[in-house]
Amino acid sequence: MTPRNPEGIERMRAGFDRQGVMRTLGVEIEEVSPGRVSLLLPFDADFTQHHGFLHAGIVTTVMDSAAGFAAFTLMEADAEVLTAEFKASFLAPARGTRFRMVGEVIKPGRTLTFCEARAYTLGEREVLFATLTATMMAVRDRPSVRS
Amino acid sequence: MTPRNPEGIERMRAGFDRQGVMRTLGVEIEEVSPGRVSLLLPFDADFTQHHGFLHAGIVTTVMDSAAGFAAFTLMEADAEVLTAEFKASFLAPARGTRFRMVGEVIKPGRTLTFCEARAYTLGEREVLFATLTATMMAVRDRPSVRS
Amino acid sequence: MTPRNPEGIERMRAGFDRQGVMRTLGVEIEEVSPGRVSLLLPFDADFTQHHGFLHAGIVTTVMDSAAGFAAFTLMEADAEVLTAEFKASFLAPARGTRFRMVGEVIKPGRTLTFCEARAYTLGEREVLFATLTATMMAVRDRPSVRS
Amino acid sequence: MTPRNPEGIERMRAGFDRQGVMRTLGVEIEEVSPGRVSLLLPFDADFTQHHGFLHAGIVTTVMDSAAGFAAFTLMEADAEVLTAEFKASFLAPARGTRFRMVGEVIKPGRTLTFCEARAYTLGEREVLFATLTATMMAVRDRPSVRS
Repeated sequence: MTPRNPEGIERMRAGFDRQGVMRTLGVEIEEVSPGRVSLLLPFDADFTQHHGFLHAGIVTTVMDSAAGFAAFTLMEADAEVLTAEFKASFLAPARGTRFRMVGEVIKPGRTLTFCEARAYTLGEREVLFATLTATMMAVRDRPSVRS
Repeated sequence: MTPRNPEGIERMRAGFDRQGVMRTLGVEIEEVSPGRVSLLLPFDADFTQHHGFLHAGIVTTVMDSAAGFAAFTLMEADAEVLTAEFKASFLAPARGTRFRMVGEVIKPGRTLTFCEARAYTLGEREVLFATLTATMMAVRDRPSVRS
Repeated sequence: MTPRNPEGIERMRAGFDRQGVMRTLGVEIEEVSPGRVSLLLPFDADFTQHHGFLHAGIVTTVMDSAAGFAAFTLMEADAEVLTAEFKASFLAPARGTRFRMVGEVIKPGRTLTFCEARAYTLGEREVLFATLTATMMAVRDRPSVRS
Repeated sequence: MTPRNPEGIERMRAGFDRQGVMRTLGVEIEEVSPGRVSLLLPFDADFTQHHGFLHAGIVTTVMDSAAGFAAFTLMEADAEVLTAEFKASFLAPARGTRFRMVGEVIKPGRTLTFCEARAYTLGEREVLFATLTATMMAVRDRPSVRS
């Protein structure tokens, strides 16, 4: 997809660096292209649920960031991105030591951008274990949402 | 609601203590009753998004735990709880220093339990800033999902 | 809630009359107030799924209209309402001969309005059998979405 | 995918024929294979919203049936399929005179099957205008849900 803003990918990387939670979770950017962002997440026992797997909300945190940053790569230079809503499905427990979350834009728009993300366990074979669909909103002239 | 298992609330508290992520996020149980769980979450800059507010995924992590544990209080003693899916909506940024997430069972069932959760900012006035609906699944005889 | 447009309820009723599907399904307005719409739907064998109950999509059609029209009552006179997304949960089959769908605004906004709806079977006792959460969008100056 | 029940596709076609709403909407089966169902829907002014496009709930009705029947092709002979929940996103109005809804199984399971569906306008070019994700449930020994 053609970004409306040639600096979209640079702005996305700067936005990623400002997300404290990405640093805390040890997330790294694997690959970025217009409308698509792939992130890598290591297992960490600090973020587990009651069976010792990564908590569904943590998996969702990284799927949401992958989807939101994918949307952000296509946004105009005066826009910030916010998540309006998402839905996530958990097909299987998050088994393993390393995970890939891939976010993609399905339909960009001036105000709303529809995105999807998928989460895979890495290792001998990639297993799809969670999916997300999200509505991202471009906000302009709203200094109140900035840090 | 009447729990099927009188030990439901005790089991719920033990399950909460096994969730590494609740400890890491500093979440505390405010109140538990059959089919309803209220959790408290402090602000922490380690879990923010790019505007300095708590990341939507972190807010969701605590809403999901409140909803899942609400379901768990009503489950039979041989059942564990897993999240099949959830949807979360973000009505406003997570402003403030302390938050309350309240999970409730809407419809219990032997296999599926439908739950809702709401997230409020605390302070001079409580503001509803996020909502969640979730499908929780009771799993039995599945040692593989236990830690 | 205070409608931004005093004619909101009149506009809502006119919009309802323009929805061919409401007429086809035999839906009637039970009650309207700012930010809240209650609709009544009769059972009709023409709209059933494979077990003879109303199809989940038909239940959702009326929940979506209740939610969308609730949003519309609060919108400014230059805005039209479109559904960006919804999620529906089906707690039980739609048993019975008559149903009530109640839509409510949870958080109004200039661009996005967050809504919920609940569906009840009518009869000796009201049973909640389905729920919906939706994101409604106000669109302005878009003749293309008009018929 | 390998159906657990070789008669899965025959059972699916019989289930489709029992859905009154499919007949009423004029839906036809375009193609069925294990885990995948493609349906065709004509435009009909009886099922429109206030701008004259097909109502989002009607689009969802057909996406839900495509997804549910895709799940049903893989289910064992003693199981019936019910929708537990779905989420649908509306990327654009349903413009046109004929539509294709394709449902696919993402993850089959003995109890829960996760599905997705996509809706396209037909004509000179296919345009993706709506998406759905759903959780389908296999029910056994529940005569009460049968017609």
